[in-house]
Amino acid sequence: MTLYEDIYHEIKQSIKDGRFSPGARLPSIRNIAEQRGCNKLTVKKAYDRLKAHGYIENRVGSGSFVRYPEKSTPESHRIYPFHSAYVSAELFPTREAAGIMQDLFREEGGLFGSGPIGGEAELIQVLSKRYRVPAATTLIISGAQQGLNLCSSLYNLKISEQMMFEDPTYSGAISVFKPSKFVPLLKDGPDLQVLKKLAAEGARFFYTMPEVHNPTGISYSKEKIEQIAEIAELYDLMLIEDDYLSEYLDHTPIRFVDLIPGRTIYIKSLSKVTAPGIRLGFMTVPPDLYSQVLYKKYSADIGTTALMQKFLTRFIQSGRLDQHIGHCTRVLGQRKKVITGILSKYPYLHLDWEQSGYNLWIRTEIPIKVSVPPWAEGKNFSFSPELRNYFRLSLLGMDNESFEHGAAYIDSLFAAQHTGFQRPVL
Amino acid sequence: MTLYEDIYHEIKQSIKDGRFSPGARLPSIRNIAEQRGCNKLTVKKAYDRLKAHGYIENRVGSGSFVRYPEKSTPESHRIYPFHSAYVSAELFPTREAAGIMQDLFREEGGLFGSGPIGGEAELIQVLSKRYRVPAATTLIISGAQQGLNLCSSLYNLKISEQMMFEDPTYSGAISVFKPSKFVPLLKDGPDLQVLKKLAAEGARFFYTMPEVHNPTGISYSKEKIEQIAEIAELYDLMLIEDDYLSEYLDHTPIRFVDLIPGRTIYIKSLSKVTAPGIRLGFMTVPPDLYSQVLYKKYSADIGTTALMQKFLTRFIQSGRLDQHIGHCTRVLGQRKKVITGILSKYPYLHLDWEQSGYNLWIRTEIPIKVSVPPWAEGKNFSFSPELRNYFRLSLLGMDNESFEHGAAYIDSLFAAQHTGFQRPVL
Repeated sequence: MTLYEDIYHEIKQSIKDGRFSPGARLPSIRNIAEQRGCNKLTVKKAYDRLKAHGYIENRVGSGSFVRYPEKSTPESHRIYPFHSAYVSAELFPTREAAGIMQDLFREEGGLFGSGPIGGEAELIQVLSKRYRVPAATTLIISGAQQGLNLCSSLYNLKISEQMMFEDPTYSGAISVFKPSKFVPLLKDGPDLQVLKKLAAEGARFFYTMPEVHNPTGISYSKEKIEQIAEIAELYDLMLIEDDYLSEYLDHTPIRFVDLIPGRTIYIKSLSKVTAPGIRLGFMTVPPDLYSQVLYKKYSADIGTTALMQKFLTRFIQSGRLDQHIGHCTRVLGQRKKVITGILSKYPYLHLDWEQSGYNLWIRTEIPIKVSVPPWAEGKNFSFSPELRNYFRLSLLGMDNESFEHGAAYIDSLFAAQHTGFQRPVL
Repeated sequence: MTLYEDIYHEIKQSIKDGRFSPGARLPSIRNIAEQRGCNKLTVKKAYDRLKAHGYIENRVGSGSFVRYPEKSTPESHRIYPFHSAYVSAELFPTREAAGIMQDLFREEGGLFGSGPIGGEAELIQVLSKRYRVPAATTLIISGAQQGLNLCSSLYNLKISEQMMFEDPTYSGAISVFKPSKFVPLLKDGPDLQVLKKLAAEGARFFYTMPEVHNPTGISYSKEKIEQIAEIAELYDLMLIEDDYLSEYLDHTPIRFVDLIPGRTIYIKSLSKVTAPGIRLGFMTVPPDLYSQVLYKKYSADIGTTALMQKFLTRFIQSGRLDQHIGHCTRVLGQRKKVITGILSKYPYLHLDWEQSGYNLWIRTEIPIKVSVPPWAEGKNFSFSPELRNYFRLSLLGMDNESFEHGAAYIDSLFAAQHTGFQRPVL
């Protein structure tokens, strides 16, 4: 290998291992040349190749940076979609949905009208009651992901540099915000020492999933939520509270939007509890932000399809949503039993902490060799090397038959890895 | 009035008159203080008040700037919505739509599934054929407005400073891009001298509506389109071609996406030819941009509702879209006759140039006094003082009965203004 290839491979490996995280600035060409005692052109050649292969990118006037992973868009059509973030549409009551749609066309007008930018008044009322949020500052969005985007657009690019994220965090937030400030997640919530330190250093936002966190499934303790609310007051923080799946808790969630509503943008996905193709969610924002957010929503896509909003209104009002969640919860119970049974056969696999929701966040002591993993790998949710030993297994992303075959498939995958594994003697 | 009030009112008036455009930098406080021979604190007090009233905003380290109008989100529920950019949902064949929806639920699966990020393959095929664009680089979006947003996100903030806009231009583009470089529109297309000058000065993008321009209704001449394509090659420009309404032309449009596909992001609204609540459109992009745009689409809202896509597929395949456009064209013909009849009664009103589509861009020689105008005012589409004498009257935004009453209403409005108008003797 020539020297430039050496440099190329070394940096590439550092990026792959996570020693250089996405967004990190690389040492300058001059620096490396001095360190190595070589010509700057040699280093430049290595950097050019890293750039050509998509590992790094230049920002004019500020040097070379590790690129954010842009290839992480999930392919939706794997055979056993344990990677899914959604409940399979196969579990959705399509026949009942057809009935609701027929009623809509018979009984309601305005199905193809534009409607208010902030969403259908009736749906907002229904959601306001169900989720205990003020209707006046709640608006309908085309799924929670759009909510993240509106936040980003609201605060402009500044937000990325000033925002703290849980580690691990939701991959869709990584793709919108390109984060660089992380707060490690412990079993009862984020590490408050780190949170305070970053806030003291000037962070102004915290993207948080306090209940049924994605991907870990943990919920913050009541004490931690209250402490974070205090920290937010003290350091003048704005929280973006992403309620991913609180419907799957067996208790009423403790939320920032209740404790410190003036500092909380609350985003609720409605796709996660219905079906992946129902691109709906809502946002509740502090009153002084409402008109700005509405304007950003208008700029983003004029408004969310009225027909789908009217459909969801009736789906909730008729009790179908609760029935659907109840059904999914029962299916989930059975599937969790099957999967935990499989996991218990392999001593190198661990379910740390208590988890709710329909994902399992699994730690493995050995790297699992598989070309296309059927689950979502830890690296999608974190840049920390130590979290590469985790993966998220989602249990409701397929119908019953696929699940049965899929469970057998991952069992065989684990068994194949298992060969030769010895728990280290301590 | 105290001196600070004087300064406040003077600048406020300059902003209202358009002498200071949105985005323009105000003179520094020091400058004005020197000019006026007054204390800097006096000027600062005036600026603070301008800021408090929303006329200007500060950017850290770079001074005070005129704010972009953020209040321009249209209220959807005026009695006579001549301001609408859409065909009224009342004209949409809802009964036939109900039939298509019923068939869908009976015959198709995946209605609530997530589907591919870039859209349903069958819809892309149908659109590719109908609109003569390559399927491989076409993706479905949640309306044309989202396409503009994806462009903005694709090129980052830089785009606003480097992008040229027609003057007048689409108000939704103003709200996304906050433009500052304008090319005056003549009756056969943009002023090429200005276009070349701005390109020579470093502009790299041109947001263009070459056919059935919004708001003016003009179409570029074939010669100008070809000349612009040459200018684009010469100055390395990327064009964002917004096909607002080419379906209402009586000839095949001449498009940049055909002439210089490698330099054209083609955005087609499908809401404008169906109904305002059908939030669908598509984008065709140069091959080297496709995967980046797909990633941005994923970040924006994961994907567009599959159900609506499948609905539109059948709506087009069954010939209903063509029937709908045909019906609207006939309605439009009748309404144009009524309105031009009214206009001809008032010598201060003018329809300059040849116009297609369902809007009329009307010039008035006297300011029309009305508290809430039923049409869209020129200032929504331009910051140029001279274009304040225009307004856009949209003819398909209401049902037949509303139109009839609405036409009588604007007739009476014009009549009221007319009193005392004398054509100046030249």
